[in-house]
Amino acid sequence: LTTELTIAVLGGDARYLEMIRSLQCSANASVFAVGFEQISQSFTGGIQRELEDIDPQSLDAVILPIPGVGSNGQIETVFSDKNIQLTESWIDRLPKDCVIFTGITNDYLTELFEKRNLRLVSLFDRDDVAIYNSIPTAEGAIMTAIKHTDFTIHGSNVVVLGFGRVGKSVASKFNALGAIVQVGSIHDADIARISEMGMRAFFLDRLPEKVKDTDILINTIPALVVKRAIIEQLPVQTLIIDLASKPGGVDFDYAKKRGIEAIHALSLPGIVAPKTAGNILSVVIKQILINS
Amino acid sequence: LTTELTIAVLGGDARYLEMIRSLQCSANASVFAVGFEQISQSFTGGIQRELEDIDPQSLDAVILPIPGVGSNGQIETVFSDKNIQLTESWIDRLPKDCVIFTGITNDYLTELFEKRNLRLVSLFDRDDVAIYNSIPTAEGAIMTAIKHTDFTIHGSNVVVLGFGRVGKSVASKFNALGAIVQVGSIHDADIARISEMGMRAFFLDRLPEKVKDTDILINTIPALVVKRAIIEQLPVQTLIIDLASKPGGVDFDYAKKRGIEAIHALSLPGIVAPKTAGNILSVVIKQILINS
Amino acid sequence: LTTELTIAVLGGDARYLEMIRSLQCSANASVFAVGFEQISQSFTGGIQRELEDIDPQSLDAVILPIPGVGSNGQIETVFSDKNIQLTESWIDRLPKDCVIFTGITNDYLTELFEKRNLRLVSLFDRDDVAIYNSIPTAEGAIMTAIKHTDFTIHGSNVVVLGFGRVGKSVASKFNALGAIVQVGSIHDADIARISEMGMRAFFLDRLPEKVKDTDILINTIPALVVKRAIIEQLPVQTLIIDLASKPGGVDFDYAKKRGIEAIHALSLPGIVAPKTAGNILSVVIKQILINS
Amino acid sequence: LTTELTIAVLGGDARYLEMIRSLQCSANASVFAVGFEQISQSFTGGIQRELEDIDPQSLDAVILPIPGVGSNGQIETVFSDKNIQLTESWIDRLPKDCVIFTGITNDYLTELFEKRNLRLVSLFDRDDVAIYNSIPTAEGAIMTAIKHTDFTIHGSNVVVLGFGRVGKSVASKFNALGAIVQVGSIHDADIARISEMGMRAFFLDRLPEKVKDTDILINTIPALVVKRAIIEQLPVQTLIIDLASKPGGVDFDYAKKRGIEAIHALSLPGIVAPKTAGNILSVVIKQILINS
Ligand SMILES: NC(=O)c1ccc[n+]([C@@H]2O[C@H](COP(=O)([O-])OP(=O)(O)OC[C@H]3O[C@@H](n4cnc5c(N)ncnc54)[C@H](OP(=O)(O)O)[C@@H]3O)[C@@H](O)[C@H]2O)c1
Ligand SMILES: NC(=O)c1ccc[n+]([C@@H]2O[C@H](COP(=O)([O-])OP(=O)(O)OC[C@H]3O[C@@H](n4cnc5c(N)ncnc54)[C@H](OP(=O)(O)O)[C@@H]3O)[C@@H](O)[C@H]2O)c1
Ligand SMILES: NC(=O)c1ccc[n+]([C@@H]2O[C@H](COP(=O)([O-])OP(=O)(O)OC[C@H]3O[C@@H](n4cnc5c(N)ncnc54)[C@H](OP(=O)(O)O)[C@@H]3O)[C@@H](O)[C@H]2O)c1
Ligand SMILES: NC(=O)c1ccc[n+]([C@@H]2O[C@H](COP(=O)([O-])OP(=O)(O)OC[C@H]3O[C@@H](n4cnc5c(N)ncnc54)[C@H](OP(=O)(O)O)[C@@H]3O)[C@@H](O)[C@H]2O)c1
Repeated sequence: LTTELTIAVLGGDARYLEMIRSLQCSANASVFAVGFEQISQSFTGGIQRELEDIDPQSLDAVILPIPGVGSNGQIETVFSDKNIQLTESWIDRLPKDCVIFTGITNDYLTELFEKRNLRLVSLFDRDDVAIYNSIPTAEGAIMTAIKHTDFTIHGSNVVVLGFGRVGKSVASKFNALGAIVQVGSIHDADIARISEMGMRAFFLDRLPEKVKDTDILINTIPALVVKRAIIEQLPVQTLIIDLASKPGGVDFDYAKKRGIEAIHALSLPGIVAPKTAGNILSVVIKQILINS
Repeated sequence: LTTELTIAVLGGDARYLEMIRSLQCSANASVFAVGFEQISQSFTGGIQRELEDIDPQSLDAVILPIPGVGSNGQIETVFSDKNIQLTESWIDRLPKDCVIFTGITNDYLTELFEKRNLRLVSLFDRDDVAIYNSIPTAEGAIMTAIKHTDFTIHGSNVVVLGFGRVGKSVASKFNALGAIVQVGSIHDADIARISEMGMRAFFLDRLPEKVKDTDILINTIPALVVKRAIIEQLPVQTLIIDLASKPGGVDFDYAKKRGIEAIHALSLPGIVAPKTAGNILSVVIKQILINS
Repeated sequence: LTTELTIAVLGGDARYLEMIRSLQCSANASVFAVGFEQISQSFTGGIQRELEDIDPQSLDAVILPIPGVGSNGQIETVFSDKNIQLTESWIDRLPKDCVIFTGITNDYLTELFEKRNLRLVSLFDRDDVAIYNSIPTAEGAIMTAIKHTDFTIHGSNVVVLGFGRVGKSVASKFNALGAIVQVGSIHDADIARISEMGMRAFFLDRLPEKVKDTDILINTIPALVVKRAIIEQLPVQTLIIDLASKPGGVDFDYAKKRGIEAIHALSLPGIVAPKTAGNILSVVIKQILINS
Repeated sequence: LTTELTIAVLGGDARYLEMIRSLQCSANASVFAVGFEQISQSFTGGIQRELEDIDPQSLDAVILPIPGVGSNGQIETVFSDKNIQLTESWIDRLPKDCVIFTGITNDYLTELFEKRNLRLVSLFDRDDVAIYNSIPTAEGAIMTAIKHTDFTIHGSNVVVLGFGRVGKSVASKFNALGAIVQVGSIHDADIARISEMGMRAFFLDRLPEKVKDTDILINTIPALVVKRAIIEQLPVQTLIIDLASKPGGVDFDYAKKRGIEAIHALSLPGIVAPKTAGNILSVVIKQILINS
């Protein structure tokens, strides 16, 4: 960043502390943090302000919290006693090239900025954010596997379902640790890439016959793929780790019935590496601001 | 393959010898090879036939050579004295679910089968074929790098341009050999994935500043990216390897002028690993026939 | 194992359950297990016996528990109410080529078998056992690192001290997970091998200047190397993991004083992977019996 | 190097050009080069001198060529018309703490310096030099494999014999390129380490049964291990690469008789990476001078 940037952060959780620190340090930026009174200013390096003390016209970027903004413009805070109220009049005063960031968006938020022709970036809808977050997700899966088995990952038979953003990282990291990794996908191109990366590939419809010696079964597909018929084929000491967001891709009831341990491991980046998760956001935000 | 398949191969080069052998061996298939008289039948295992001695109605698949068929239906052969003449009447007798394979297609070929509602698979347009072929391509690049430098890949500064099907394989293999690999791309998601894979990522517009200590510069982008302004920044002992198809992505004239060695390394799969290249075709053909 | 082997296991902990199962299954062996009454016979597959019901003359191997035998010949059991008493007269009846295994030995044990010219194998003194055990040790270190930090291993600065059997495995696995690994050793050959493996090497006397940006410091050297002067250089959020056996190689008191978290992570194989730890023993025992 | 060093290089081949340049550049050193008249001084940066113009008393180190010195004190040059004559009187005037380097030594050379209590370092007898050189050796083996086969290393069955300094590097690099690598050794500890590194290990006496599907057989053991009985088991299209120094470890005559291609690939570091080979020498020389 060659020119000085002025950024307002309106609320946020633990991940945002690192994000603020990182934006403040490495970029040529002044960060105003609203809703962080319970955190010592020295901790993040950001300058704590009340919303009314910030001049919207001076801002290059506004960063909203991960869950975005309620339909009445209310922002819930984690590190403050009072919530923040975003008003249309405040937004109206933002400069035309100001970029607004949120974790996830909703119709209210999207419309709010669209009709003003302001750029709204929904961070968690971005491919790059999903890929960066797949790293702490994979490490969380590794920790879970080591903790919940009585054997090493090295030398174990691991089946990974799905080869999207999370599946790629999970499979390659278990492979790097010496597991014998098989990856199932429905895509021809995935089958080829899995082989290129030195793992074994199979089409998902062959899943039933692939799981007979599985030690660890890791699902990343957001659909019910680990059904009863699959669980029936699993050795009873298999560990199932489901990474797919709710409701997940595993018949947990049936797994329990068969006495197979199945863990639905969610929100791993925030759990195993909140600092990295915050840093990912600052990296991507900086890149977007540089390129815009 | 559980049911017996009958496949006709009409012409083809060295890669097809392995393809025929592999189809004949590992699949439950009978392969009729037309246009291979100069090759001993025992070599491929396929059954050599004249086109007229094959009953089209019995065929599950027809495999045309890599360059496809001329606009008059003529097929040039490599291992025979006479060319093969494909007639519309012959095609008319193919069963409805017969699959036709070619390396690349053209308007004539596409229309020929489309109007008969026959499935034509253009192998080299497939993502999986491109990914499988990226492996021998990467090995060819490795051989070129070892041969044309007086230092080891291990420890050298390698810049790879492009992170598509070839770029991914090339970058990860040089990384595996201990090079310090930087990869340039225009895509945010690539930047994230490159980092996840343990390499250094940069946006292509930063290329000029990234090449100052480069030992080996490898291009996979089919556009002129290694221009004069980039070549000017390169140390004079840098080796440039351009993998992009003609005309490539390097200003070869200017490289020569500056005394920088630049190699346009084309058709590497056929050169360094014709057997693997043939095997790739048989793997993909088998998968398609199984799934159809 | 082509000929049938008869093996007596006299006591042992959780690791021995897997060892018995594995010996019984994969080798052509009959295993008599003494001191495992609390375990269902079906669990290990071994045949439970009283010591007096076993004919020593029929034995090819005797396996004593990890800690060996007390100086009066007493063997403490984990899965039985009563201990086992090994008598000289019993030992006198073992065949000349019977091999005796123990985890660690002592003067009493060594002399007991030496004077009878019987081969005593002290498993934990073997290089191969130490190397196999370095795998679960490294995975234990990985789990500890993920659990006790708020950042990912990927991209973090990890310093490993020592490049012996444990150090090699730990360093290469953190490297495989994408950490930037520096390894310190006093040996020239280690420095070269560390470089060859794609990591950064330094001579241990340069340690003070190497730890300034360290995120995770892992010690494997059984000597006080992480002294006050080193800890003074560490960033305060560094995590220290000491893998060296008691008393370890870290000034834990001073680390605590500086507010740096330091974990003495011992006996990791038995903790994170008892099944693998037992399997390692059976693999090595089988190899020794095959080769003898 | 904090204090200025004065170093005399007496003769040497292409590798020494890079060594001189590297010593001159990165160390705080003055390098006098004798026997390099045919090379432009600007090329190496070293200062060209006649032997008689150098004051032995000022020297911290003398570097003799790789093959050392003839028994009459004669040094053969590669880049000069005249040879160099080392006299006892010249040596007598070297300071007591001067270090003398040679590639390999002989009785004459050893005695010459021993009786004067001068430290003679025989570079090629050092473990670290052998390990560093194993890197270009492995890359040479890779180039040979790619060039002399019609299939990719990726996915091929590679058997490596010996797990010493060269064997470790060769095996791990073929593994990194996606080959299915089996390594044979006689040492228990090697078997364990090979497994830890994610490759398949076998005891050498099982070699006959291990080679039945081998695509590439690479020997690093300096003894006749690839005998007739082994070659008889190999598929006829196997490529044998023997890296062991003369006479090698392969029955080349019998391989030829069976029509199996066997390549004795010697002196690879000097062939594929003379610059790296020279750099290795300068790295090790600098380390020794720093530590002494
Ligand atoms: N546990 C955690 O901490 C954590 C962290 C991050 C993400 N997640 C969750 O993990 C899941 C995967 O995320 P991602 O970023 O990897 O998503 P992604 O990139 O979309 O990958 C999902 C893969 O599954 C495939 N797929 C989808 N539906 C399928 C079906 N019915 N049958 C077969 N394959 C199917 C997709 O193919 P197509 O591309 O053709 O749809 C894609 O290849 C999501 O639920 C995400 O919310 C969890
Ligand atoms: N030498 C050989 O033996 C050999 C073997 C195989 C392939 N090839 C050739 O290698 C080249 C790459 O093949 P591939 O399969 O990797 O293709 P690919 O998957 O399409 O990858 C090419 C990459 O370059 C990017 N790109 C295209 N135009 C660009 C531009 N103007 N500026 C910046 N980036 C650009 C593409 O981005 P988008 O996706 O956004 O376009 C894509 O990421 C092709 O020319 C192919 O014919 C050569
Ligand atoms: N935490 C666990 O679960 C666990 C598991 C297994 C082992 N361990 C322990 O981990 C430690 C390392 O085991 P290991 O099998 O790796 O041993 P190792 O193979 O002997 O390696 C130790 C390395 O440290 C070096 N070293 C010894 N003293 C040194 C000193 N004063 N200064 C510098 N370097 C020194 C050794 O060099 P030399 O070869 O020259 O002595 C050797 O390279 C031991 O204490 C072992 O009991 C712990
Ligand atoms: N082609 C080239 O460019 C090139 C480059 C460098 C080196 N080399 C040559 O490559 C060979 C290996 O070098 P290196 O540095 O790896 O040597 P190394 O470290 O001594 O390794 C050789 C390995 O072979 C084992 N071995 C020796 N004799 C054996 C036998 N009869 N049966 C079974 N195993 C045996 C050794 O075990 P022990 O340790 O128990 O003896 C050791 O593990 C040497 O001949 C060397 O000169 C060639």
